[in-house]
Amino acid sequence: MSTSRRTRVLRLATAGPQDTAPLAAAIAAGEVDPATIVAIVGKTEGNGCVNDFTRGYATLSLKLLLAERLKCAPSEIDKRVAIVMSGGTEGGLAPHLLVFSREPATAPAAGPRLAIGVGLTRAFAPEEIGRAPQIAATSEAVAAAMADAGIASPADVHFVQIKCPLLTKERIEEAARRGAPVATEDTYHSMALSRGASALGVAVALGEVPAAAATEAAICHDWSLFSRVASTSAGVELLRNEIVVLGNSAGWAGDLLIDHDVMTDAIDADAVRRVLARLGGEVVAVLAKAEASPSGEIRGRRHTMLDDSDIHSTRHARALVGGVLAGVVGDTMLYVSGGAEHQGPAGGAPVAIIAKVS
Amino acid sequence: MSTSRRTRVLRLATAGPQDTAPLAAAIAAGEVDPATIVAIVGKTEGNGCVNDFTRGYATLSLKLLLAERLKCAPSEIDKRVAIVMSGGTEGGLAPHLLVFSREPATAPAAGPRLAIGVGLTRAFAPEEIGRAPQIAATSEAVAAAMADAGIASPADVHFVQIKCPLLTKERIEEAARRGAPVATEDTYHSMALSRGASALGVAVALGEVPAAAATEAAICHDWSLFSRVASTSAGVELLRNEIVVLGNSAGWAGDLLIDHDVMTDAIDADAVRRVLARLGGEVVAVLAKAEASPSGEIRGRRHTMLDDSDIHSTRHARALVGGVLAGVVGDTMLYVSGGAEHQGPAGGAPVAIIAKVS
Amino acid sequence: MSTSRRTRVLRLATAGPQDTAPLAAAIAAGEVDPATIVAIVGKTEGNGCVNDFTRGYATLSLKLLLAERLKCAPSEIDKRVAIVMSGGTEGGLAPHLLVFSREPATAPAAGPRLAIGVGLTRAFAPEEIGRAPQIAATSEAVAAAMADAGIASPADVHFVQIKCPLLTKERIEEAARRGAPVATEDTYHSMALSRGASALGVAVALGEVPAAAATEAAICHDWSLFSRVASTSAGVELLRNEIVVLGNSAGWAGDLLIDHDVMTDAIDADAVRRVLARLGGEVVAVLAKAEASPSGEIRGRRHTMLDDSDIHSTRHARALVGGVLAGVVGDTMLYVSGGAEHQGPAGGAPVAIIAKVS
Amino acid sequence: MSTSRRTRVLRLATAGPQDTAPLAAAIAAGEVDPATIVAIVGKTEGNGCVNDFTRGYATLSLKLLLAERLKCAPSEIDKRVAIVMSGGTEGGLAPHLLVFSREPATAPAAGPRLAIGVGLTRAFAPEEIGRAPQIAATSEAVAAAMADAGIASPADVHFVQIKCPLLTKERIEEAARRGAPVATEDTYHSMALSRGASALGVAVALGEVPAAAATEAAICHDWSLFSRVASTSAGVELLRNEIVVLGNSAGWAGDLLIDHDVMTDAIDADAVRRVLARLGGEVVAVLAKAEASPSGEIRGRRHTMLDDSDIHSTRHARALVGGVLAGVVGDTMLYVSGGAEHQGPAGGAPVAIIAKVS
Repeated sequence: MSTSRRTRVLRLATAGPQDTAPLAAAIAAGEVDPATIVAIVGKTEGNGCVNDFTRGYATLSLKLLLAERLKCAPSEIDKRVAIVMSGGTEGGLAPHLLVFSREPATAPAAGPRLAIGVGLTRAFAPEEIGRAPQIAATSEAVAAAMADAGIASPADVHFVQIKCPLLTKERIEEAARRGAPVATEDTYHSMALSRGASALGVAVALGEVPAAAATEAAICHDWSLFSRVASTSAGVELLRNEIVVLGNSAGWAGDLLIDHDVMTDAIDADAVRRVLARLGGEVVAVLAKAEASPSGEIRGRRHTMLDDSDIHSTRHARALVGGVLAGVVGDTMLYVSGGAEHQGPAGGAPVAIIAKVS
Repeated sequence: MSTSRRTRVLRLATAGPQDTAPLAAAIAAGEVDPATIVAIVGKTEGNGCVNDFTRGYATLSLKLLLAERLKCAPSEIDKRVAIVMSGGTEGGLAPHLLVFSREPATAPAAGPRLAIGVGLTRAFAPEEIGRAPQIAATSEAVAAAMADAGIASPADVHFVQIKCPLLTKERIEEAARRGAPVATEDTYHSMALSRGASALGVAVALGEVPAAAATEAAICHDWSLFSRVASTSAGVELLRNEIVVLGNSAGWAGDLLIDHDVMTDAIDADAVRRVLARLGGEVVAVLAKAEASPSGEIRGRRHTMLDDSDIHSTRHARALVGGVLAGVVGDTMLYVSGGAEHQGPAGGAPVAIIAKVS
Repeated sequence: MSTSRRTRVLRLATAGPQDTAPLAAAIAAGEVDPATIVAIVGKTEGNGCVNDFTRGYATLSLKLLLAERLKCAPSEIDKRVAIVMSGGTEGGLAPHLLVFSREPATAPAAGPRLAIGVGLTRAFAPEEIGRAPQIAATSEAVAAAMADAGIASPADVHFVQIKCPLLTKERIEEAARRGAPVATEDTYHSMALSRGASALGVAVALGEVPAAAATEAAICHDWSLFSRVASTSAGVELLRNEIVVLGNSAGWAGDLLIDHDVMTDAIDADAVRRVLARLGGEVVAVLAKAEASPSGEIRGRRHTMLDDSDIHSTRHARALVGGVLAGVVGDTMLYVSGGAEHQGPAGGAPVAIIAKVS
Repeated sequence: MSTSRRTRVLRLATAGPQDTAPLAAAIAAGEVDPATIVAIVGKTEGNGCVNDFTRGYATLSLKLLLAERLKCAPSEIDKRVAIVMSGGTEGGLAPHLLVFSREPATAPAAGPRLAIGVGLTRAFAPEEIGRAPQIAATSEAVAAAMADAGIASPADVHFVQIKCPLLTKERIEEAARRGAPVATEDTYHSMALSRGASALGVAVALGEVPAAAATEAAICHDWSLFSRVASTSAGVELLRNEIVVLGNSAGWAGDLLIDHDVMTDAIDADAVRRVLARLGGEVVAVLAKAEASPSGEIRGRRHTMLDDSDIHSTRHARALVGGVLAGVVGDTMLYVSGGAEHQGPAGGAPVAIIAKVS
């Protein structure tokens, strides 16, 4: 039998975006070999919006640590590790890192186990962000990441985490100077378009949405098109899409399994309970998306997230979904990322859990 | 048998702080006789902090409607109806009003039923806010409100809602001109002190804390002292404390019951489940408090609410607890009020539910 | 000679949006006859954005006071007095009211004096806001207000203050149910479109922009089109445009004159100095607009207003322009309103001063 | 004659906290020798409050650049260069760096020229922040920095920039575990206390306030005590005070001079005009402090900064003073730092300008 790899997941609390001490300690203690790390997904305590520099700060700090431990240039880390920081720990969410490593397996598992693959798109021009080229390039990179994970069937993919770029005033101006109008001049809105295009890219790659239907016009307009496993997060600190595919595969060993479900709205605690019931075991990580329902209502009740000019709706939504999940799981160390455009149905979103099963 | 009264509760969604149309419609439809209304408790969509004028706006709007329907001066309404607006509908919370009316009962009930009483303190001088005089006056007014409700035993009190004043720059200056220093010069902090002193007043009235222990020095310092049923909310629009006592009493009829429990932390969903299990029936209203745990942690996980200079911790806490409750109850029309100083243990808070039981 | 009217302007500090005591005192002291009040323009201390209820609260409070003094229904006041509240007193701006009254003149003036006229459009459907119908209706209403003021020449118009509506989630949904798509689904952005369309309406009425050029496509796109005297402010509390035209006219007496200039950017203090130099006399009121330059720069220096997801750019801009004006005028009681789309050149805005000249 | 040194000042716009490209370009172009840099003072675009990580991010980025250019460890840079980042570019302020270098002079100057000296205190324990030990240690370090600058007379000191620490929830808890109560449990307020104690340290060092008067009780209470040249800025990214003294000295050559004045309130544009008039020449850098007047008024007009729970008062104050200065200087690239406790009179603050004079 050809079982050759296993995925490890470390969940590490951080004391701030610059805090790499917990990872350094884990490396020192032999809990993780830095050479095996393929992805770090984390929550930082910025606003999760346009001017959130905590994502870049955390990413830089992690790169410096890994470069030192691996005795390479920090720029080398870009090629080895997908670092996906999501800003915003509203409500009770605890800043933390999920460190994914993969290593040769010493023993085969009884069945499929957690598999991980990573992928990258090229850098996008500002005028491509939130448009068709971002859908197409993302779809290709997701397919590559699935291949990297050794996952053949879309049914075995349970979470696709993507970090994607956004527009800033400067990027918009740069494109304008070249005569290339961008998808929106509202920088905050560009985050939604980039997340939406990226999620449609996932949906196309996994066959959830036909490529012909995932048009530019559909982005952030046709909410009937969505992926059930995409989780996309926009940040100012990059220009390409970075992709981490998580699923289960018979080619992997270890004691971790992942499963997911779709919250039909922001307070759909039952979706989380279903995942927990199917998985059993001890919860190792929870990953979910959150958004303010575009209808302005949750189960017929008005919410005020979309009319609030003091706090952006993504911040409200993270706090809300964080509360719903924490009430079920009993823990606030949750990866909840805001803005679920085309990630689950309108107002709802995917939730995935990784558990230690044996 | 002397059953003489029954409490009715209307829960009405609002479209903004000025929206009295739903109450006007309910009056027009005969669902409530405005002459029987004794209290209105509501959530408005302001920031719930110092400069939240939505509370005053909603209160004025309600007074105007009731004065018109009752053909009296708006100032008369102050004497007839306790109007307690709590600002802040962060996360998914739905702005709404809980309209409490009491009327003669036409038939006795099988057992104790929802009872309501109201009370008022005198207006406080700025230098009394958050200090011993506020504790003492509140304690007396709670006792009066219990008598008004016909509740003899503190064990039958399940929720004591208080609206209390706060300090503004102008009130502080006015006191300073009289040579009377106030408890704090930080207007936001004055909300905590006022809430804390009011909650200790409840605790003294109900025998939860000995009067001798509820000292001025204990306010917002000795978190071991708390009430299990107090819910206090500070607002700029008043100078006295307005008190609504809710409990069950054999002297009341109707089909409503109230019960409560204490969330030991912000994500204690089990406390809510216990109340639901004990009550049975259909949920008519949910009332809870929320606060960022002063330790900076929830079940050993760091939260960032107290270090956030963009969004005040009370706003985060309402969103979080609103999510926890909504995940259990399946509804976002919840009265969640922020700042639970001496209301439940540190980081936790009371939660009460009114249900239709027969 | 037929001089028949004079304008009076009272500038009154307020202690909050609900504070009508200063106006009540002025009426009691005989400083203003409430029957002569035609417009009240004021600054309130909300966020000046979508969920700013201080504008509606102040408007309601003023209506109640005037209705009581004039012994009429509050709804009558709508027909008698244009009440234009602008939210946002960022930086050092002082909340205040400018109360404009007009009365028969007892003596002719030596020359043209401050003239005031008011106008109203019909209520707009949500799908008309920020579109061509708003331009056209505003243009007609400005012409009517000029006639009301007895000002024949556009050159004698120095400030046109307009309060205009915005889109909320509910208005958008209502239009959608009728199959009528709105100009934007972003409620904050709808404020810009409504201000922009209204300003183009002024420009058309005054001949600053040809009607044929002021197309729907130009709204918030073609920044070369603008009025040098328009000041438009969006609020949730109305559905029509309310217009106040201020200028000088030989048909008016009294001791007040108005003049204006255009700030070419947000820090153009020279424009203010020019107005002061031309007018002479004692400053009675300062009215100005403010916006973040859409280029992202001020005199070649980057600003961060448009990338800030914590504080909206209109709030930054009011604080900035308030500082520039206060440094020149030596006073923070300034009417500075945010969002200067088509009001002055891109990044700049009109500023008008009323002075007592004799 | 013993003229031995000259100070150079580079003012560099940045595109974000991570942007070191302009400094790298200046080094590459030979505009500055990295080995001669002694201080970098800058504005970053965070909130300038407790959870502002842009200061630390910028500091780390600068250290990495300098370490690479100087071929040393980043930790070496701590000993060579005082890096003082101040968060908050509200209103129109432009993010930028002021790079101070000192080098041997090739020719003597006609008179005193810009001199610079740096100093450091030891790291403070949390319970020392905002208390007497911080005053004392700062006073000593200022004296050392003056000596480093070769400035003998306090009259020749025109600006003392200090970066000082603040309390976070974690630092407070750590101290509590040792039984050491901190000066305040309000993290935002700890910034004020730290700035205030540091400013009193400057005042003592320069003889502006007698050491006996600068007591712990006076910190943020006795506003009659203040320095006319102190500028202190709190940040989460350090535990000691870092001090940069700027003045004029006959021992320095070059073409730069510094002068200062005191704004008596936030809109005192005359103070800036006086400095400009005395200095003449071309403005190279403007450094000022800003605060919301604790009285709640500016020249008798109410401001709302201290009652605003959405935007902290330091943010308002920076925007306001930035506007006042920009209106005079005609430039928004200004170093305006918030929180002027004991830095100038209550509500006022120092302003210093560096100009090229020959």
